[in-house]
Amino acid sequence: MATDIPLANLKEPIDFAEYLFTRIKQLGIQSIHGLPGDYNLVTLDYVPKVGLTWAGNVNELNAGYAADGYARVKGAGCVVTTFGVGELSAVNALAGCYSEFVPVAHIVGTPSTRSIRNNMLLHHTLGNGDFNVFANMSKQISCAVANLFEPHDAAQQVDNVLREMMLQSRPVYITVPSDLSSKKVEGERLKTPIDFSYPANDLEKEEYVVDVVLKYLHAAKNPVILVDACAIRHRAVAETNEFVRKSGLPTFCAPMGKGAVDETLPNYGGVYAGDGSNENVREIVESSDLVLSIGAIKSDFNTTGFTYQISQLQTIDFHSNYVRVRWSEYPGIRMNGVLKKVTERMGKLNVSPTPAFSNKVAAVDQGDLNGEITQAWLWPTVGQWLQPHDVVLTETGTANFGIWETRFPKGVVAASQVLWGSIGWSVGACQGAALAAKELGDNRTILFVGDGSFQLGAQEVSTMIRRNLKPIIFCICNDGYTIERFIHGEDAEYNDIQEWKNKELLNVFGADPKKSKTFTVKTKQQLLDLFADKEFSSAPYIQFVELYMPKMDAPKSLAITCEVAAKNNAKQ
Amino acid sequence: MATDIPLANLKEPIDFAEYLFTRIKQLGIQSIHGLPGDYNLVTLDYVPKVGLTWAGNVNELNAGYAADGYARVKGAGCVVTTFGVGELSAVNALAGCYSEFVPVAHIVGTPSTRSIRNNMLLHHTLGNGDFNVFANMSKQISCAVANLFEPHDAAQQVDNVLREMMLQSRPVYITVPSDLSSKKVEGERLKTPIDFSYPANDLEKEEYVVDVVLKYLHAAKNPVILVDACAIRHRAVAETNEFVRKSGLPTFCAPMGKGAVDETLPNYGGVYAGDGSNENVREIVESSDLVLSIGAIKSDFNTTGFTYQISQLQTIDFHSNYVRVRWSEYPGIRMNGVLKKVTERMGKLNVSPTPAFSNKVAAVDQGDLNGEITQAWLWPTVGQWLQPHDVVLTETGTANFGIWETRFPKGVVAASQVLWGSIGWSVGACQGAALAAKELGDNRTILFVGDGSFQLGAQEVSTMIRRNLKPIIFCICNDGYTIERFIHGEDAEYNDIQEWKNKELLNVFGADPKKSKTFTVKTKQQLLDLFADKEFSSAPYIQFVELYMPKMDAPKSLAITCEVAAKNNAKQ
Repeated sequence: MATDIPLANLKEPIDFAEYLFTRIKQLGIQSIHGLPGDYNLVTLDYVPKVGLTWAGNVNELNAGYAADGYARVKGAGCVVTTFGVGELSAVNALAGCYSEFVPVAHIVGTPSTRSIRNNMLLHHTLGNGDFNVFANMSKQISCAVANLFEPHDAAQQVDNVLREMMLQSRPVYITVPSDLSSKKVEGERLKTPIDFSYPANDLEKEEYVVDVVLKYLHAAKNPVILVDACAIRHRAVAETNEFVRKSGLPTFCAPMGKGAVDETLPNYGGVYAGDGSNENVREIVESSDLVLSIGAIKSDFNTTGFTYQISQLQTIDFHSNYVRVRWSEYPGIRMNGVLKKVTERMGKLNVSPTPAFSNKVAAVDQGDLNGEITQAWLWPTVGQWLQPHDVVLTETGTANFGIWETRFPKGVVAASQVLWGSIGWSVGACQGAALAAKELGDNRTILFVGDGSFQLGAQEVSTMIRRNLKPIIFCICNDGYTIERFIHGEDAEYNDIQEWKNKELLNVFGADPKKSKTFTVKTKQQLLDLFADKEFSSAPYIQFVELYMPKMDAPKSLAITCEVAAKNNAKQ
Repeated sequence: MATDIPLANLKEPIDFAEYLFTRIKQLGIQSIHGLPGDYNLVTLDYVPKVGLTWAGNVNELNAGYAADGYARVKGAGCVVTTFGVGELSAVNALAGCYSEFVPVAHIVGTPSTRSIRNNMLLHHTLGNGDFNVFANMSKQISCAVANLFEPHDAAQQVDNVLREMMLQSRPVYITVPSDLSSKKVEGERLKTPIDFSYPANDLEKEEYVVDVVLKYLHAAKNPVILVDACAIRHRAVAETNEFVRKSGLPTFCAPMGKGAVDETLPNYGGVYAGDGSNENVREIVESSDLVLSIGAIKSDFNTTGFTYQISQLQTIDFHSNYVRVRWSEYPGIRMNGVLKKVTERMGKLNVSPTPAFSNKVAAVDQGDLNGEITQAWLWPTVGQWLQPHDVVLTETGTANFGIWETRFPKGVVAASQVLWGSIGWSVGACQGAALAAKELGDNRTILFVGDGSFQLGAQEVSTMIRRNLKPIIFCICNDGYTIERFIHGEDAEYNDIQEWKNKELLNVFGADPKKSKTFTVKTKQQLLDLFADKEFSSAPYIQFVELYMPKMDAPKSLAITCEVAAKNNAKQ
């Protein structure tokens, strides 16, 4: 039913799917996640044709998580599913990308244009002839949608949605009818890269805002910098770090912003998140007369349950689409240009000392080295072991709260899902991140996941094995959903899980015993020994560590956050 | 923010969640599927309180599939998830229930009414203060929605949606804010069961239709009966079987209708689905001058790719909401009453002989008993081994096409997903079906799933072990997605899977070696020996059979269906 573009009208005819994947490749994406399904099979033939790698995930939710993890390391990701059944399985992962500003293109193979026009009663439909229902669902968690049908505007629509994806840093949804893949479109377009540059700030307005910011900055007696996720997602990491480095101001991250700042800088002081912060951090931030807040997302789990104590009267907010100085808003002004000019022009500032933040375990938390591993001991110890440019994923639960207490070496990429918080996310995300890390040059990929969360998407470890990825997986064995126990139902059956022999999964999933290794660690000394093992630390192949920890031990920040969450849930 | 009902206004005050689960229990549901999440924890406290069992699934998609499988055995199912992350993971399963007419209540725990009113920036949200977005998504795959907020109408809304669920035989979506669970509602309502009876047909109209049907039936020289899924889903199995039994007419099932008819009746002749049918079946159906079609769903996979050759001029269609005689439609008339009267009044009919259909393997398919197991040999052989009242699940692929060739003993419940066809469905569904079968009195539950599909939701085997369920799982090891290979990409990498040591999973998931058993079967004789093993066949505990079969061997019906699907996908 789709109408061919006359070949004479095309300067360089190219099959549509080749066009699509070439555009994807131009984004720096080298691997495609997803699963085959009969409506996308012909489209998938083009993946190797344009020199892309097919990850071949085990299920669609994991594939979506993997594309998310991949995008957090490489800047953008792509997942391909099939109509109805496949795409709906992935929808939670895409909603997570929407919530957390991760640019992922979701390509869905649909029935042919003829089948759609004829309302055929096909498999993978609701049986009611409505072929729009799934697109209507995905529209609500996508920043742009291309429901492709005709070759004549397909290439243009692809360019448009990919541009929106990068500018808004959110997922897009693209449907490709099975017969469209091999239709000819204009290939000459590919010679002009899609313009992903942000629209420039209005110069006069930007200058004005810079002056206002400088006025308050110079007047401040003890300013601090607080960096959050949108600095990463909206690509202001370079400007942020330059500002932090040159100003020397005490600098902190919100939990979601972990990894945005070079933590080897002497003026990096750790995580600030209200009552969950270390006491000395809380004091200096909350007593500051000017908080320069970059890319903030003030969600409950990012603020230890809204216990953030910073007055807007002492805050300058830098965002991707506005700057706010105290209560004065400057809409349409992007932070990057402002930060750059402020850094250039700020001159001498009042710089308070930054509180000490190191990976040294506090004396009170040291305990018996032959005793069990505690959260308070684990995370600084992990910090001592991490290497520059590691990719570190932490699952929602004790891990993504615990990581607050880890000071990163240079260039560490941190990924966790503080706002969306879908348990199980990190296993799929680790597969994608590990693939991205491999493409970047064999950076180590390290996952911390609880035994409860691990179960939801455990089979993606199979894809890691299949693709010869080399993550180090720490599975925190603490008997179930600890984060839930802290909120409600400490001893409730619904917070229990079936106990698995987790590390045996490598063997079941077909890992070569010579190219994989598993470990069980129950004491602090055992973990120290493992970290001291050079072969282990060189991450030569996939490694799985069962890390036994007490059931009701949790980072302080998690305990406080859960207490507030329980109160909010009960409030009427 | 929700307003309490003054206690003085309530005759028998009861906590809302107790009311809700009591209504669920009145449907005959004894077990609740799902996962905990902080917004549903308080609600889950009421599950044991009202005497229901918590299944405790491993992930939400599997939980949804499990509720589907449970509903197919017990008539209705229930799954509980948490806001955003949990519910979206389950949405594919619920869409499947919508597509295939399976009544499942999806209960979603949401943030408190105060949090919603205040647009709080909570975890599991898109970060934009919109708390309706997920409900808007689920609305499109639910026959009714109750977005509960105020106690004053919560009980009434629950009754309304559950009634719709049973009348329309489709899923419903119910949101329960975390603070609503413990609010008081009127408990006295529970003494009056919800009225699930179908509205009666208009008597005069029904009589008219019965007369028309009888006129054509008596005039017909060689009428046949063709039964499909809606006979099961819209609860017309009793009337259908009475009609089949008393008429003696040659009777056939569509693939989706498998299990609707008592296959021990002498006039049951097997599956009719166009070109995929056995030749003698095709001949008698397509040469019949009157096809009495009960509850048809004429989808591609249910008709071997629309190769159904029956003229509407020779058809009477019986449906839940209309009857159609040739081209004359009688809307608003439910089949049950009409079938009953036709059966009572039909008298003597022209009854042709029914073609032989037995579980005897054709001579040409017998082959060497020490040779590999073929599809043509497997399915009749399975038929010889099945027992009355077995619950048999077949995954989309070679299994749900192969089962056409199995003649069932009495009372077998068959479940497969012919229309929706979400691969991986059957593993979760098997957990739910096995739990339902256990509640019914320890009926055997038997699953046939391909090794490709098995991987998507393999971890639900863990729940089967945890709940001491006793399914017999046949994992067809044939190296990946065979059904896809038949459609496109026979040797494409995307149709390959990572090879697992599947049967080892029982051990990994914590099965007691004394209460579980695994087998590897590679030849026909080995399978015959296994079937002859009385202990195996008595299904004393969970058993897992790796059934090796050739990669490109498929039932004939599947091969034809895939050929048509490939053509449809390519058609422009």
